[in-house]
Amino acid sequence: MAKVGIVMGSDSDMPVMAKAADILEKLGIDYEMTIISAHREPDEFFAYAKSAESKGFKVIIAGAGMAAHLPGMCAAIFPMPVIGIPMHTTSLGGRDSLYSIVQMPTGIPVATVAINGGANAGILAAKILATSDEALLERLKAYSQEMKEQVVAKAEKLDKVGYKEYMNK
Amino acid sequence: MAKVGIVMGSDSDMPVMAKAADILEKLGIDYEMTIISAHREPDEFFAYAKSAESKGFKVIIAGAGMAAHLPGMCAAIFPMPVIGIPMHTTSLGGRDSLYSIVQMPTGIPVATVAINGGANAGILAAKILATSDEALLERLKAYSQEMKEQVVAKAEKLDKVGYKEYMNK
Amino acid sequence: MAKVGIVMGSDSDMPVMAKAADILEKLGIDYEMTIISAHREPDEFFAYAKSAESKGFKVIIAGAGMAAHLPGMCAAIFPMPVIGIPMHTTSLGGRDSLYSIVQMPTGIPVATVAINGGANAGILAAKILATSDEALLERLKAYSQEMKEQVVAKAEKLDKVGYKEYMNK
Amino acid sequence: MAKVGIVMGSDSDMPVMAKAADILEKLGIDYEMTIISAHREPDEFFAYAKSAESKGFKVIIAGAGMAAHLPGMCAAIFPMPVIGIPMHTTSLGGRDSLYSIVQMPTGIPVATVAINGGANAGILAAKILATSDEALLERLKAYSQEMKEQVVAKAEKLDKVGYKEYMNK
Amino acid sequence: MAKVGIVMGSDSDMPVMAKAADILEKLGIDYEMTIISAHREPDEFFAYAKSAESKGFKVIIAGAGMAAHLPGMCAAIFPMPVIGIPMHTTSLGGRDSLYSIVQMPTGIPVATVAINGGANAGILAAKILATSDEALLERLKAYSQEMKEQVVAKAEKLDKVGYKEYMNK
Amino acid sequence: MAKVGIVMGSDSDMPVMAKAADILEKLGIDYEMTIISAHREPDEFFAYAKSAESKGFKVIIAGAGMAAHLPGMCAAIFPMPVIGIPMHTTSLGGRDSLYSIVQMPTGIPVATVAINGGANAGILAAKILATSDEALLERLKAYSQEMKEQVVAKAEKLDKVGYKEYMNK
Amino acid sequence: MAKVGIVMGSDSDMPVMAKAADILEKLGIDYEMTIISAHREPDEFFAYAKSAESKGFKVIIAGAGMAAHLPGMCAAIFPMPVIGIPMHTTSLGGRDSLYSIVQMPTGIPVATVAINGGANAGILAAKILATSDEALLERLKAYSQEMKEQVVAKAEKLDKVGYKEYMNK
Amino acid sequence: MAKVGIVMGSDSDMPVMAKAADILEKLGIDYEMTIISAHREPDEFFAYAKSAESKGFKVIIAGAGMAAHLPGMCAAIFPMPVIGIPMHTTSLGGRDSLYSIVQMPTGIPVATVAINGGANAGILAAKILATSDEALLERLKAYSQEMKEQVVAKAEKLDKVGYKEYMNK
Repeated sequence: MAKVGIVMGSDSDMPVMAKAADILEKLGIDYEMTIISAHREPDEFFAYAKSAESKGFKVIIAGAGMAAHLPGMCAAIFPMPVIGIPMHTTSLGGRDSLYSIVQMPTGIPVATVAINGGANAGILAAKILATSDEALLERLKAYSQEMKEQVVAKAEKLDKVGYKEYMNK
Repeated sequence: MAKVGIVMGSDSDMPVMAKAADILEKLGIDYEMTIISAHREPDEFFAYAKSAESKGFKVIIAGAGMAAHLPGMCAAIFPMPVIGIPMHTTSLGGRDSLYSIVQMPTGIPVATVAINGGANAGILAAKILATSDEALLERLKAYSQEMKEQVVAKAEKLDKVGYKEYMNK
Repeated sequence: MAKVGIVMGSDSDMPVMAKAADILEKLGIDYEMTIISAHREPDEFFAYAKSAESKGFKVIIAGAGMAAHLPGMCAAIFPMPVIGIPMHTTSLGGRDSLYSIVQMPTGIPVATVAINGGANAGILAAKILATSDEALLERLKAYSQEMKEQVVAKAEKLDKVGYKEYMNK
Repeated sequence: MAKVGIVMGSDSDMPVMAKAADILEKLGIDYEMTIISAHREPDEFFAYAKSAESKGFKVIIAGAGMAAHLPGMCAAIFPMPVIGIPMHTTSLGGRDSLYSIVQMPTGIPVATVAINGGANAGILAAKILATSDEALLERLKAYSQEMKEQVVAKAEKLDKVGYKEYMNK
Repeated sequence: MAKVGIVMGSDSDMPVMAKAADILEKLGIDYEMTIISAHREPDEFFAYAKSAESKGFKVIIAGAGMAAHLPGMCAAIFPMPVIGIPMHTTSLGGRDSLYSIVQMPTGIPVATVAINGGANAGILAAKILATSDEALLERLKAYSQEMKEQVVAKAEKLDKVGYKEYMNK
Repeated sequence: MAKVGIVMGSDSDMPVMAKAADILEKLGIDYEMTIISAHREPDEFFAYAKSAESKGFKVIIAGAGMAAHLPGMCAAIFPMPVIGIPMHTTSLGGRDSLYSIVQMPTGIPVATVAINGGANAGILAAKILATSDEALLERLKAYSQEMKEQVVAKAEKLDKVGYKEYMNK
Repeated sequence: MAKVGIVMGSDSDMPVMAKAADILEKLGIDYEMTIISAHREPDEFFAYAKSAESKGFKVIIAGAGMAAHLPGMCAAIFPMPVIGIPMHTTSLGGRDSLYSIVQMPTGIPVATVAINGGANAGILAAKILATSDEALLERLKAYSQEMKEQVVAKAEKLDKVGYKEYMNK
Repeated sequence: MAKVGIVMGSDSDMPVMAKAADILEKLGIDYEMTIISAHREPDEFFAYAKSAESKGFKVIIAGAGMAAHLPGMCAAIFPMPVIGIPMHTTSLGGRDSLYSIVQMPTGIPVATVAINGGANAGILAAKILATSDEALLERLKAYSQEMKEQVVAKAEKLDKVGYKEYMNK
């Protein structure tokens, strides 16, 4: 049963949302991904947000751009954490998306990650679930170790070849 | 029967929304004003937006601040014009409200006015109704004439007393 | 007789303004499109704005970029709604256009849509006319239904093929 | 045993952090609040962040202003969710704090709430814990119901007294 | 005969515009100051801008705030230099005024000074007139000398009393 | 004898500065163009700015990008008008250049034009010189007429071929 | 002999610059403080910057606001480090000062600190001198220790009295 | 023995950091370059920053992007100057990096250079070391002379060939 719902307002957001799904798969977390527009199909959106708890979702990851209302409207209905991903936008660089998602009024928080931060949304969902799942917490620690080793390997390579050769490769 | 619905997300927005009501009263337009939070009471909000057409509303004026979703969510449901008023905010000066209201995706426009532009929202609503109401159009023209005369009077006063005395008064 | 005037300050704005025209055509609304620069030909601009009401226009859609004065100057003269489209700009991303259009002083509102929001300007014009045109209101509802069905179809496709295949197509 | 650690970089942040504590108390969640500066006492900070898991913390709420590194550095060490509160700042309105907290690189998310969003940080922490605590989830739903009733009461008052009297009170 | 026209869109701009007038008086330059709103009385505005050359104006100083169209519209009509003063605004700090004035399209420049830069507008007008007026140029050089001496006096005072006593005074 | 000095801080600014020169040539105004960096060769810069008056310059057009000090430092030394052109920049879009040029302190104005506004700087210089040169004023009016005719021709073409064909060409 | 020159463009900057002086006094570093405007007295400024090395200065701390050219012009002339302090400004919050100081072109760096960061400028000057002064380095470490102890004392007080009582004091 | 440590949070920053290294090589200053992520490997980072003084570093140059904590965390530990380079970012143009680096709280300055200002970071490090190294100071002066000569050569070329030919080459 899916513990995480991934929802986006438009399929143009999919490359970013896919990174959240990739992380969840890597960490062995069931999720369900769909496209629902709070603006273009408000009834479907309402039905989705209202049924999310009974479907077993513990976290919703919602991505949207411009006047990005989807994460906040999810948070108005779903009683557990909603993670918001602000999409990069051509004209305002994603400031519009960011402000529309993070500046929520008192009572209805959205856990906001960086502009286009799909992978981080997935990791944050995993960290939330890991508050009650020891095995997942271990997998998260292993993932952190992996990230660390990648940096160490790069530092060793730089130390060995120097920056001029490093950049030529 | 009210032709304009005025709705705000919080009673802290009332001083701005009141200016819209003042204009509508001045121009003889029936309106109905209420407080509904799309975030704190989504069901009530949905009911409000869905019943707006059958109640006879031709225009909705919606004001909200920060991650301001109320105008856009009204526009997702109500089929006639929604006018959005971005509220001034302490930290971001109202840019958050403005972007959350004006940057709507294709298909769901919100007719956005200036930050804290309550009076202009009222005037815009009147202009919309005036597209099919000759008498209202005449009242709007009279209102414009009145504004013009106020500026002319100030210019005459300045011409008469000079800027130093003008500012001392 | 055209009910909507579409006016732009420069033919470089035409790709955005064309989207407004496309929507009006789709919804069966007569319009007249022209290029007039408030800055380069103020007399012609004045004549245009002053004659707009007698030509039968009920709404003007005006697009402009940078120090975008065309929509606001139209609103100073034309007594019915003016919809402003802020153009994207290279250096400031359209913030200059947006602020020049939306931040109108009390008394002269411009109904502002998103940066480059040509289609939304067309839809907003239609919503304004629909306040006194039942048949048009029905066409607008049908258009909303169409938008909804497009999203539903995408969600179904995603559900069927998964995000990896969806993105490869 | 405290499940939530509340940490701030300076006691000037306390009025905002106190709102997080108030919510946790209201919802019956044990927490521990302290002042630790990642910049002024990096060793103490490291010790704090490293011992947080063994102390039983499931969530850390970290607030900081300007070049706000505390939340991100907590997230670099603590394996479960870190909630970041960007403080309002005089010169940049809190944009500096917000960008320093939300724009985390891939791998180390911080769940960011609104500028000065102390109460929302507390609610988000509760929502995270509620993913594995049915009783807390019920208390959160009761809190939401309470918020809703407050808005309804205001709307009723407005309906009864009108906006002019409402604002005079 | 007045060589400089000072025009503002609203009498709320007068404290800033007065500084331009003060400088012109100090430098012995005739000016004429008035209030004309391009938005509220476009006909009067047009008449003003069109008659400016025949009245003998060589420079217009125009101040306006928010969606500040007055300077640019003057520049569209008056063939000699227009100096624009962007007014400080509560919500956007004057960025809206600045962008609306400085970002003029090719062909219609406005010589823009700092936000609330009334005195500098006056000085710039004098510098423009000084391109063909040797005596005025000498007065401008004397004014510069005066400014320099004020700074020198402050430096000497600081040197004498030290910064602690300097600030106590 | 050159009446206008055109100076840029780096030859990367030349495409923008060239537009100012093109306009001056078109309007028959003698100018002198050079490259001087206030930062890299302060002595040469000082010599340049100090000798500008005696060389016969009536106006200096100075362009610079990022922390753009060249226009303001010219204005600190040269007693007649300095026109500043803020260069577009990759990271901040030219806001850094714009603020560094327009936000001059009281006493030392820079007549600032739009970001990358080379042509407008040339036109503004011409307008300044036209305050005492009737023949130049006539040439400026002819230039305005030319601009107007270009827009009229475009409007006529649009009217004839329609926007779809217009854009295909 | 003074090793640090503190220079400001206006005595309105003195409260911020005084904090730099306070730190230098505390750390036993000789300095010389003056007021020199690069804009109002360019010759004096040049003489100052050119003589700084021979006077024995190793570091210059320069503060300025708005179009802040003083730090960058110092860096164009003085061959050792220049520390720039951007002043807070009413309209743009100090962004104008910050961009004018930090965005220096290649070849002429200014070591920029936070908006109004007077104390940090003093500390940075001390750190620079400490690269060749062991005793000063020890005093800097003692200062860091002192800062740390202040935070520890606050944390202990919070732990003892709780946040409610802490804030009442 | 290396006097300068160059550290970056990710190898994507290397093209910018390489410019710092290039300058140091040109000026004959020993440095050590590595990749260390304060976020992905906090223990390694701590060890690096704590050992920097004993390794003989006098200056650290740290570059980072987005929520850029590396320079500030270095400054929290290393007692001598830390130079911060804010990286350009796609969505916010480097404002996020800049604010995260420059807006440090009192007590822990970071000497910040321009966005992507790698070369300037190298020059600033050299200027710092030159406060106690006469020979290096001479090499810096020679470098300044070289920069000046490059500009002079360009000015001479422009003078000789004119701007049209200059740009064609």
